Amino acid sequence: MQAENNLYQQRISDIQRKLSDFKINGLVLLNIINIKYLSGFTGSDGALIICPDRLCLLVDGRYTTQAALEVPNIPAIEYKNKIEGIGQAIKDLGLKHIGFEAACMSVDMYNQLIKLLDDEVFINVSEDLRYLRAFKNQTEIALMKKAAIISSAAISALISDIKTGCTERELALQLEIYARRGGADQLAFEAIVAAGENSALPHAKPTDRKIKKGDFIVIDFGVKYKGYCSDETCTFAFGELTDQQKNAYQTVKQAHDDAIAAIRADIAASDIDNCARSVFGEKYGHYFTHGTGHGVGLEVHEAPRLAPDSKDVLEEKMVVTVEPGIYIPGLWGVRIEDTILVKENSCEIFTKMDKDLIIIN
Amino acid sequence: MQAENNLYQQRISDIQRKLSDFKINGLVLLNIINIKYLSGFTGSDGALIICPDRLCLLVDGRYTTQAALEVPNIPAIEYKNKIEGIGQAIKDLGLKHIGFEAACMSVDMYNQLIKLLDDEVFINVSEDLRYLRAFKNQTEIALMKKAAIISSAAISALISDIKTGCTERELALQLEIYARRGGADQLAFEAIVAAGENSALPHAKPTDRKIKKGDFIVIDFGVKYKGYCSDETCTFAFGELTDQQKNAYQTVKQAHDDAIAAIRADIAASDIDNCARSVFGEKYGHYFTHGTGHGVGLEVHEAPRLAPDSKDVLEEKMVVTVEPGIYIPGLWGVRIEDTILVKENSCEIFTKMDKDLIIIN
Repeated sequence: MQAENNLYQQRISDIQRKLSDFKINGLVLLNIINIKYLSGFTGSDGALIICPDRLCLLVDGRYTTQAALEVPNIPAIEYKNKIEGIGQAIKDLGLKHIGFEAACMSVDMYNQLIKLLDDEVFINVSEDLRYLRAFKNQTEIALMKKAAIISSAAISALISDIKTGCTERELALQLEIYARRGGADQLAFEAIVAAGENSALPHAKPTDRKIKKGDFIVIDFGVKYKGYCSDETCTFAFGELTDQQKNAYQTVKQAHDDAIAAIRADIAASDIDNCARSVFGEKYGHYFTHGTGHGVGLEVHEAPRLAPDSKDVLEEKMVVTVEPGIYIPGLWGVRIEDTILVKENSCEIFTKMDKDLIIIN
Repeated sequence: MQAENNLYQQRISDIQRKLSDFKINGLVLLNIINIKYLSGFTGSDGALIICPDRLCLLVDGRYTTQAALEVPNIPAIEYKNKIEGIGQAIKDLGLKHIGFEAACMSVDMYNQLIKLLDDEVFINVSEDLRYLRAFKNQTEIALMKKAAIISSAAISALISDIKTGCTERELALQLEIYARRGGADQLAFEAIVAAGENSALPHAKPTDRKIKKGDFIVIDFGVKYKGYCSDETCTFAFGELTDQQKNAYQTVKQAHDDAIAAIRADIAASDIDNCARSVFGEKYGHYFTHGTGHGVGLEVHEAPRLAPDSKDVLEEKMVVTVEPGIYIPGLWGVRIEDTILVKENSCEIFTKMDKDLIIIN
């Protein structure tokens, strides 16, 4: 607990030192995951105000006791109405140039807030905070490795449960049971178990469709372990595949492998995306309908972004996914995904399932 | 499918007829649950534009195939960048007075969007849409009853698993297994299973704390069934309670019963809150730290809101929760919650667990 508190104090000190660079004398944070990262507070709602010499956590009545337990070093103020609570705190703290995350404040909240204030000025610092959580320390890396081990073990255990006639929904539940009995706090997102024509939907939800021979089964799965997410996708063959399916699988595998082989510090995220995308060529390019990957951490999707239009550059200690896919509408889809730590001249794969084609009979 | 499509068309027609009242010639919807309600699209991101005589669903590449399957009657446009996609659609449709949900658009998105446009004007219609989903039809009521039956059955089944030494986390997992094997699509929210001192935290997360004699065990649980949520809280006694605990339980039960007894059409939501709150009096009032309830539907929290400062009035066909509680920091907490349909002169409780004190030995 003391080590954790020191970590949070360090993170907040780092922000406090930057306030003058941002030309603000206080920062109103609304992104609840940023608040968790900086303070340890795990509630679902609240606001954290960071001034050069003062801090204040604003919570509603559901979280007053929890805030005192989780964040003993930051005074908590209970609000009845969030916007009024923030407005009052801004006045009490005498903030004039207020940093805020414009990507996390609604237009409605902003309009109501400025009505409560006088000549205070809001300054968007969303971009300045873009990499707040992007660089993982040793503790975070250890937790993310553990999360990856738990989810890979669950996927591995599930293989023997995949039989003709069982449904996507049953498999998704069994997968979650393995993961939670294996130590996961909860899932990082609702598991995707998509078979046959459903695997052509990148974000399918498990249905009552039964598994049958010739199916691709896409399993996109992640867990949270002590707050940190894993993210992995396996595509299994159930029975024999057509040559076209086999070719698609090998193409996705090649795109996945090429992209991972290119990962190291100081490479543009868009270059990694291009490594994967160029493998698809004219034959499959049209069927790869999303970006190649994304950062992972306290959230399953966070900075950086691996996509054609990304301006991010990969740096040491970032953790990202690589997840190329091919989706043939109405027929089938393939996706292969690992979670990867960026190192100076290479990378390290956290997820544990081998990505060579597994045929389940 | 045809009946569903007719329902969506009806809902959209209702909105289209109101566009001129809102003084807009097009509505850009961003709230993904409102989009689901109006179109049937179940993706996690997108935008729906409603004009008097045209409709357009904007999605990213992950959802192109899914949108065509789920929403056959509305043309879908795939965007690479959401804001640019919306800006282009606004221009192509010739919208000048654009309704939007200011509570669902970030300041950042708004600022980027207006840079792409010329003299178009945005008009906030969040309040006009406040009750969009509040009145449930017969189909919705049937689904919500089924969701309530599934979650009550899961809680009931869990009772025999509650033993000395088992953890909150194990019980939460077992509860989810019962619910999903009982037909739930997924949980409506992460289950709260909070024992002893953890039950004093209204929004506790399950931990490795072991159940022991003298504990209150608060179980706040809901499932989704075909998209619709249930929400129910039981507080069980594990072994004998102190007189103070018994008194607190009976007080919460009284507050719960009194509030429910008062529910009917045309009563102010704040009056229902007051029915519960007045039972707590000086002795417990300070320990009831949240509102009395909230609407439920496609989201577990939606309009109306049952709280002291609520301006909502309950109307027939609304579905709401009543969930008073007492939380003594560091010691224990009690909460009792049902989900209830508002009727003309009365109400109907959907949730099935009896709320008299159950002592588990």
